[in-house]
Amino acid sequence: MMDRFMKQAFRLARKANPYPNPRVGAVLVKGGEIIGAGFHKAPGKPHAEIEAIRDAKHRTKNPHAARGATLYVTLEPCSHTAKRTPPCTKAIIREGIAEVAFAMKDPNPLVCGAGAKELAGAGVRVRGPTDTEAAGALNRRYMAAITKRPLVAIKMAMSADGKTATRTGDSRWISCPESRALVHRMRAEYDAVMVGAGTIETDDPELTTHGKGRDPCRIIIDGRLRIGTGAGAVRNRDGKTIVVISENADRAKALAIQRCGARVLVCGRDDVDLKKLMVALSALGIRKILIEGGSGLNAKALEAGIVDRLFLFIAPKIIGGRGAKPVVGGIGIESMKDAIMLDGMTVRRVGRDVLLEARLSR
Amino acid sequence: MMDRFMKQAFRLARKANPYPNPRVGAVLVKGGEIIGAGFHKAPGKPHAEIEAIRDAKHRTKNPHAARGATLYVTLEPCSHTAKRTPPCTKAIIREGIAEVAFAMKDPNPLVCGAGAKELAGAGVRVRGPTDTEAAGALNRRYMAAITKRPLVAIKMAMSADGKTATRTGDSRWISCPESRALVHRMRAEYDAVMVGAGTIETDDPELTTHGKGRDPCRIIIDGRLRIGTGAGAVRNRDGKTIVVISENADRAKALAIQRCGARVLVCGRDDVDLKKLMVALSALGIRKILIEGGSGLNAKALEAGIVDRLFLFIAPKIIGGRGAKPVVGGIGIESMKDAIMLDGMTVRRVGRDVLLEARLSR
Repeated sequence: MMDRFMKQAFRLARKANPYPNPRVGAVLVKGGEIIGAGFHKAPGKPHAEIEAIRDAKHRTKNPHAARGATLYVTLEPCSHTAKRTPPCTKAIIREGIAEVAFAMKDPNPLVCGAGAKELAGAGVRVRGPTDTEAAGALNRRYMAAITKRPLVAIKMAMSADGKTATRTGDSRWISCPESRALVHRMRAEYDAVMVGAGTIETDDPELTTHGKGRDPCRIIIDGRLRIGTGAGAVRNRDGKTIVVISENADRAKALAIQRCGARVLVCGRDDVDLKKLMVALSALGIRKILIEGGSGLNAKALEAGIVDRLFLFIAPKIIGGRGAKPVVGGIGIESMKDAIMLDGMTVRRVGRDVLLEARLSR
Repeated sequence: MMDRFMKQAFRLARKANPYPNPRVGAVLVKGGEIIGAGFHKAPGKPHAEIEAIRDAKHRTKNPHAARGATLYVTLEPCSHTAKRTPPCTKAIIREGIAEVAFAMKDPNPLVCGAGAKELAGAGVRVRGPTDTEAAGALNRRYMAAITKRPLVAIKMAMSADGKTATRTGDSRWISCPESRALVHRMRAEYDAVMVGAGTIETDDPELTTHGKGRDPCRIIIDGRLRIGTGAGAVRNRDGKTIVVISENADRAKALAIQRCGARVLVCGRDDVDLKKLMVALSALGIRKILIEGGSGLNAKALEAGIVDRLFLFIAPKIIGGRGAKPVVGGIGIESMKDAIMLDGMTVRRVGRDVLLEARLSR
């Protein structure tokens, strides 16, 4: 049987549809009475926990209303800082809330359990998950989205002999102007463009639609956090840059990156776990991703099996060289039978180039 | 003014058309009298020098008729052994001919000057070239052929990411059966198929049309002479295998290869000089060559600038790997502006693969 206060939190949660965020409701209880209530109204607006605390202060005219109270919330409070809203755990601890009951763990793999752990570490009594099934039912669309990986396309541009740069690293330009303009237009169809740290370091590209549509987010995969705060993508304060690092990365440097306005996600122990990241990005509402990687990221994405579609631009030139950059690097397969197979391959001309499109069987 | 005996040699030369070989005539003179005369009638038939010696023996009924005589011949006597006919220099020396006058040096770069040098080294008096222009005019078609390089096409088959084998060397099969069958049919259109020693060592391919037409010659580029007499292409006694080695190669091994029935051409000091080889092959009547190289030969041929046409089969699979075989290896270019440009690129489907065709600007 669901606790009657939790029931009330669920009732509140149902009032809003802050997609792509989950629907969350919260009530604050003291002396057997609800002293505050709230729900997460829209992306970018305060979370349900913050709304309930504010409501309690407002109703009681007491800025310390939450002290010693119990918080009932339909989702594990968030602890991650790489968000538009400050983490709820910090507010709960600061306000002196004594106990937190939550219905369901956060399904985002970058968050799951971390909020509960942080609260418990700060001496807050934590109960939960108490009603996982009901909370999941409340957020069918969100749950479906987060358990379904984003659609991932990979764009690669190479010479006819599969190279992206000469042995000295010269890569400007592989593709013809028409191909590059097509890529700019393609970006408008994606929520995010993903690149590796190497691409930022060598090219520091804009990764925009060049005025041809809505600019996507920029996701920079940088397990060891090699890029600095000088990179254009990091300095751009449009809030559209996400830097994904591993647990191995320098935390002080990560904070410096955050101070520039970029989000930082930690995903994976030694290197970025792309499979896990896809679920996390799904939780952030990123449903379509275009990978514009170099040799290394292309290999990692293909090996991780996260790629659905391939756009391969083939330029009418031959670069040659054992030491030239191959379009797909990494370790590679051992046996031909392990090759990644392309389905439904089509080809068409784009300017002087040929564009080969195909699906990848996941 | 042309010597009257040389004039007679020219008259004889005009009698035959042994294309693709040059027209050559010869007279043998002793005591101011012509004692023998002959011309090269057809490919595979004796050279003019040999015909003249035989004629002298026949006319005079003296097996030593040529001793002390002067030979007038319209082309420098050949010295190379990798032919269907034994070298004329050996016969001239053996018969005790005292003097040789020749109208023109052999335009084949593998022979040019070597015959004259060998004769002089054996104590024969050598005069020539005496009438280069007239001898060239006599062989306009041959001269045009030998100064014009053969038409060279290169066939490459790769994964969508430009690899021909996995990092462990597994390459069977990159292409689909339809593409492989098309290559078998293509071979019938070429005088010769050219491969590198590496291809012979790893695959020992048949390089035939698989019954789909006339089988081309097999040209194996093997500068250091790595292949052994066990290779199928060498053991095949159809007289259609040419092994091209450099001056650096082991001569004893070369003789063993010859004894198996393959021709051996020496071309280039440390490695095979492909540009020079093209002229030499032209002299052998090879007018259309299909290169089916591996990573190394593809790079050498493209760098040497001998390739006119590209047939690139692209298979719907991704191999990946920094250590996987690239379709074009070698050193490669430094700067993008030095990339080899493809003109008139077209694409079409062949089975599951895509065939990209293009011209190369020489």
